[in-house]
Amino acid sequence: MSNHFKIAILISGRGSNMNSIIEAVKKGEINASLDVVISNNPEAKGLETAKEHGIDTKAFDLNSYTSRAEFDLAIIKFLKPRNIDLVVLAGYMLLVGADFVSAYKSNMINIHPSLLPSFIGRRPHQQALDYGVKLAGCTVHFVTEGLDDGPIIMQAAVPLLEDDNEASLAARVLKEENRILPECVNLIVEGKVKFKRSIRHEKSIN
Amino acid sequence: MSNHFKIAILISGRGSNMNSIIEAVKKGEINASLDVVISNNPEAKGLETAKEHGIDTKAFDLNSYTSRAEFDLAIIKFLKPRNIDLVVLAGYMLLVGADFVSAYKSNMINIHPSLLPSFIGRRPHQQALDYGVKLAGCTVHFVTEGLDDGPIIMQAAVPLLEDDNEASLAARVLKEENRILPECVNLIVEGKVKFKRSIRHEKSIN
Repeated sequence: MSNHFKIAILISGRGSNMNSIIEAVKKGEINASLDVVISNNPEAKGLETAKEHGIDTKAFDLNSYTSRAEFDLAIIKFLKPRNIDLVVLAGYMLLVGADFVSAYKSNMINIHPSLLPSFIGRRPHQQALDYGVKLAGCTVHFVTEGLDDGPIIMQAAVPLLEDDNEASLAARVLKEENRILPECVNLIVEGKVKFKRSIRHEKSIN
Repeated sequence: MSNHFKIAILISGRGSNMNSIIEAVKKGEINASLDVVISNNPEAKGLETAKEHGIDTKAFDLNSYTSRAEFDLAIIKFLKPRNIDLVVLAGYMLLVGADFVSAYKSNMINIHPSLLPSFIGRRPHQQALDYGVKLAGCTVHFVTEGLDDGPIIMQAAVPLLEDDNEASLAARVLKEENRILPECVNLIVEGKVKFKRSIRHEKSIN
């Protein structure tokens, strides 16, 4: 795959959302090249999948670095010469630090499995079940300094069922994640969506 | 209209959500009687509409009472002999105090025009626009002591459009309010939904 618009994907596990982007690229629905897939987990199943699709992969082991900042810098240093146009956090379970955000400001997106601003942070499905909402969902947003706080690109709602548990809800939401993440990547590749701070961000800056 | 299940509706304005309940009752979709419509605003357009449908109405003017608690007690005293089974806050713009909540515990519902727990309180549409969400919506919930905090019965999502403002978004969400509020009333009338504290409420009690 070679193309002028280059995407890097960061994963931590099996990479289901990564797969949905790979599929969309293979089908020609996204006119970009998947330059590299990075994981903080050398054992991530998604790294194997990426390799099978002929995509470069790289694992960074947090234990090999003295700090999270050093770890992030190693990834940035690795990515820099690759001239990446868009970094996609697709089930990447680590918080991206300030240096990383600043290096890919307005060119990094994340998918969070809740209807933000509800249920920020860890275990959003369990948070949704505990709260007792009737609609859960997922959100694709640009990454900023705040946790799950950047400008929102797309959201999808998913009904909760009577006997849902964390796993069943997560599986149902994941289907919507797999649908909207490639759509959002495509909107960015085609220049139809650009990073723009929302009013609350402007307020917090001024 | 006479029936064993008696509903009181509280409004503050034109009573669009009240209208949707009146329609559902007239169509026989809700097997209950609308016993009375109450407003904190003697000028509320909805009082006229209710009268036209032959429903008792009553206005309580906050200025005639020494405190919000006294005001609430007057409403409770008025409602008590009517043996109301369900109180519906349908665009009632005042906070219901502790005495009122306690008098109709588990038999009072409210509709809030946001996907709770997002955008609690005042001007939820403007809050949603300022935040930059892509899905807004509305929530029907049982009324508890906390603001917009009770167990959720139903939620509906509404997409935000590119050029939405507070008024256009409010109008679009209102259509969904008009749809789900009568549905929720009917579920309660039919005994299919009962007040049940969610895990977060149990946690906050224990």
